[in-house]
Amino acid sequence: MKVGFIGLGRMGAAMAANLIAAGHDVTVWNRSPHKAAPLAERGATIAATPADAAQGSVVMTMLADDRALEAVAFGPDGIAGAPALHVSHSTIGVALAERLAAEAGPGGFVSAPVFGRPAAAEAAQLFVVAAGDPAALDRCAPLLDAIGQRTFRVGDAPPAANLVKLSGNFMIMAAVEAMAEAMTLAEKGGVDRRTLLDVMTGTLFDAPIYRTYGAFLVEDRFRPAGFTAPLGLKDMGLVDAAATAARVPMPLLGIVRDHLRAAIAIEGEDVDWVAAGLAVRRAAGLD
Amino acid sequence: MKVGFIGLGRMGAAMAANLIAAGHDVTVWNRSPHKAAPLAERGATIAATPADAAQGSVVMTMLADDRALEAVAFGPDGIAGAPALHVSHSTIGVALAERLAAEAGPGGFVSAPVFGRPAAAEAAQLFVVAAGDPAALDRCAPLLDAIGQRTFRVGDAPPAANLVKLSGNFMIMAAVEAMAEAMTLAEKGGVDRRTLLDVMTGTLFDAPIYRTYGAFLVEDRFRPAGFTAPLGLKDMGLVDAAATAARVPMPLLGIVRDHLRAAIAIEGEDVDWVAAGLAVRRAAGLD
Amino acid sequence: MKVGFIGLGRMGAAMAANLIAAGHDVTVWNRSPHKAAPLAERGATIAATPADAAQGSVVMTMLADDRALEAVAFGPDGIAGAPALHVSHSTIGVALAERLAAEAGPGGFVSAPVFGRPAAAEAAQLFVVAAGDPAALDRCAPLLDAIGQRTFRVGDAPPAANLVKLSGNFMIMAAVEAMAEAMTLAEKGGVDRRTLLDVMTGTLFDAPIYRTYGAFLVEDRFRPAGFTAPLGLKDMGLVDAAATAARVPMPLLGIVRDHLRAAIAIEGEDVDWVAAGLAVRRAAGLD
Amino acid sequence: MKVGFIGLGRMGAAMAANLIAAGHDVTVWNRSPHKAAPLAERGATIAATPADAAQGSVVMTMLADDRALEAVAFGPDGIAGAPALHVSHSTIGVALAERLAAEAGPGGFVSAPVFGRPAAAEAAQLFVVAAGDPAALDRCAPLLDAIGQRTFRVGDAPPAANLVKLSGNFMIMAAVEAMAEAMTLAEKGGVDRRTLLDVMTGTLFDAPIYRTYGAFLVEDRFRPAGFTAPLGLKDMGLVDAAATAARVPMPLLGIVRDHLRAAIAIEGEDVDWVAAGLAVRRAAGLD
Repeated sequence: MKVGFIGLGRMGAAMAANLIAAGHDVTVWNRSPHKAAPLAERGATIAATPADAAQGSVVMTMLADDRALEAVAFGPDGIAGAPALHVSHSTIGVALAERLAAEAGPGGFVSAPVFGRPAAAEAAQLFVVAAGDPAALDRCAPLLDAIGQRTFRVGDAPPAANLVKLSGNFMIMAAVEAMAEAMTLAEKGGVDRRTLLDVMTGTLFDAPIYRTYGAFLVEDRFRPAGFTAPLGLKDMGLVDAAATAARVPMPLLGIVRDHLRAAIAIEGEDVDWVAAGLAVRRAAGLD
Repeated sequence: MKVGFIGLGRMGAAMAANLIAAGHDVTVWNRSPHKAAPLAERGATIAATPADAAQGSVVMTMLADDRALEAVAFGPDGIAGAPALHVSHSTIGVALAERLAAEAGPGGFVSAPVFGRPAAAEAAQLFVVAAGDPAALDRCAPLLDAIGQRTFRVGDAPPAANLVKLSGNFMIMAAVEAMAEAMTLAEKGGVDRRTLLDVMTGTLFDAPIYRTYGAFLVEDRFRPAGFTAPLGLKDMGLVDAAATAARVPMPLLGIVRDHLRAAIAIEGEDVDWVAAGLAVRRAAGLD
Repeated sequence: MKVGFIGLGRMGAAMAANLIAAGHDVTVWNRSPHKAAPLAERGATIAATPADAAQGSVVMTMLADDRALEAVAFGPDGIAGAPALHVSHSTIGVALAERLAAEAGPGGFVSAPVFGRPAAAEAAQLFVVAAGDPAALDRCAPLLDAIGQRTFRVGDAPPAANLVKLSGNFMIMAAVEAMAEAMTLAEKGGVDRRTLLDVMTGTLFDAPIYRTYGAFLVEDRFRPAGFTAPLGLKDMGLVDAAATAARVPMPLLGIVRDHLRAAIAIEGEDVDWVAAGLAVRRAAGLD
Repeated sequence: MKVGFIGLGRMGAAMAANLIAAGHDVTVWNRSPHKAAPLAERGATIAATPADAAQGSVVMTMLADDRALEAVAFGPDGIAGAPALHVSHSTIGVALAERLAAEAGPGGFVSAPVFGRPAAAEAAQLFVVAAGDPAALDRCAPLLDAIGQRTFRVGDAPPAANLVKLSGNFMIMAAVEAMAEAMTLAEKGGVDRRTLLDVMTGTLFDAPIYRTYGAFLVEDRFRPAGFTAPLGLKDMGLVDAAATAARVPMPLLGIVRDHLRAAIAIEGEDVDWVAAGLAVRRAAGLD
């Protein structure tokens, strides 16, 4: 399939490489052009503008935040209105997804955010959460198969997928908060944190999220950041915006946002978002 | 081994039956004597008093709350000071565990609370969290093997096990709160709750706790209660007492306790503790 | 002084009338022109555009929210860059105040939000919180004296005044939350809400805010709204934005925002912001 | 009137002195007998046991906490069942007040907790919150007039007065939390804390509680403690117990308790309860 790919950060570059490997005809664009070079070596065409990358069947975007995607979509030579079906993988807010859907070109618009860290992207093992017109979803299905291990269809309205993705990120932070509180209580009560984690992951909480983030917490491993606290705070702000619009009280979200703010205030802008758990320890007088 | 078992509710009766099945010489006692009859048919001796059940090598207790265990231990004909090693399986507070350890008889005291619902107890598939003197733990190890699938040793001081058990219950309620908030946001945003749950348990949250409690939430299945909200609120009160004593701020615990109170206030004393999630829905104007 | 006044809602119209009464030469503008007529009868000139109202010494603005002020300032025929000193009375966010200061014309920019309900505006009894260049503050001081009982100068950077105003609104909602929780506890414990309020305002909490909002709570008087819950939620969102930018955890703000969302979800968009207290009652099963 | 007074801490000693000054025939008892000497010099009789102080018309108690009052009432030579009307001024829990009422002697039981610091007690300027049988309240009214500036009658059931007193202490802590959050936001936004406080107390929050505690916060004055954080945490625990019993969610109470725990964890057991506000600053990275 003739497909464009915009946004060649660590995640996007890996996804684009997997599309090439699957035999698709890929055109790439990135704001910093040097990131396109390694993909060109693998056979990708380099586009001069975002719009140029959106002249085929599908254009996929994987950008850092709402602002970056707005620039690519609605800025000069943007892709809004271009012929290709726009498949958006970025973690963006509900309001922007609604606007992208409303102002899409003839190809239409699909929201398809992903779960997974860069290693999963490289291994084509992402989970894709997709929403949009069923025919459009069918059209891009082979591409989604090329980047992920499984695609979940969650509705006909594209913002549904963004809501699910944001909810997932919220639930990760909620699990971090729960572990941090339990570990702090245990530690001050004389129980080693790792012991608590081993019991939890060995019984009721035998899920990757608890193993991965639990280990970060036990080891106070907050740098280098896999996903920074300010980016996490931005995502939680998108959840908050959705909750405000829908009139949904979310007290646990409030705690999570407070602890991300605290982590940044105390530790700096470069810590991993799991450092939210550090705010719990500090409030209990530890360290 | 000659072992006593006190407390023949649904959990305790199943555990005692498994001890008999494993070939141990079991003496049972229960405040309501009729519950002992089925075990007598399987070969158990019925004791006249708690103390009578504590004359062998080990006496195990599985009672509803601190008060019930205090009566059995320190009341008339209580087991405190009796020759047997006291192995306490009840979910009790840290302060009571400390007192039981301090006032134990020559056999000593081990805390060994369990994770698992009645079905797991019947199948001898409980998880046991044990703490106490290593020699005492070795002595009762065959008994713990007879009731559970795995025993975690978490320390030499018995209250450590209670702290781990209470932390686990807190983490369950934390997961319920996280799911309830995410599901409410999703539902008001047009995404079916079951869809959200399927994505979460199919990706990052592939753990029994999310599958089980998530299904209860999606189906608003709060009666009959597997574990009632007032009992859950009592347990969370034990966590709160430990957090107060150790000077540990636990804001997520505060939310959980508030939502258990709300669930009881709105729905009645007989609902399951997962109804804490209902408080989230109601606050968002649903139902 | 030759002064423009933009924004003739109930607050703005009263403030403009007081400027006329104090002998100033007032030019008014309002998006819905019919609201200007009563002021014209009192001697005001009606401007054709916002910019026309900003050709004198000072132009004062009193608008509903950030969006309305942005339209007046940066829209077609806007006042940004016009010769007059811009004195902004609206309750707006810190970020917008920074932009207004940065893009002000030769007259400069002063933030001067006010505390007080419409009755206080009519009686020229507002409290004015002002920040900006001292010389600019001196220039507009007679105008501020004409609309309020007292002006507090809180700094040289205009956004300081907005931060103080937003903090005040937050503290009002915090007092409402405190009263609502205490009243609900008292009521379910058999103590009349009015009795509790009388003791509090008769002892430690003898302040207008407790008397006024306390009475609303005791009487469940939420309609008609003096200040609607959605507007209150918007203001609390501005506090939240400032807290996010400054990395300040504000858990009480989180509660307040949740309860405003709940009040709107349960009761509708037209309730007073004091209905946040109703969310507390409902969560306790009352009504 | 022949009246006993038990509990001669700084508050109780001042209250007893005022009873003597008002011409009553006062018998005193204190666990540490040396504290009775100064009152004996003023004319008080020293009782040998609590019961000896409860043989007249009325016996008043002013003790540190539930445990101390339980010892005086239900311990050896306790006052429960003695002939005098028991008037309890201590800040105690609802459950203990219920028990004292149920086990009172022929004279009956009245709850009459007070608001005010030691200086107010010395000046007979306390506020008294009283509940109980109206005839009993009439009987002790002259005594209450001798120790306070005003008595509020809040119901016929004694625990009502305790609930009001506890609610008042909660509302004080809520105001501290609100000020601490607003001050921290202001400070990180470039506004001096004292400036913010001056505006608030000069406008909507012109109440003693804001002036007094606001000044402590602005000056970070947490030692020596007028009322220690551990005592404040104990009081908030009594509110929490009442809220649990009555099934009332109180999220703001949860925050206050967390911040008292944090203040003690970070600063030590000897800080004033207003140090709860310090937890807010620390979480924002200040100091």
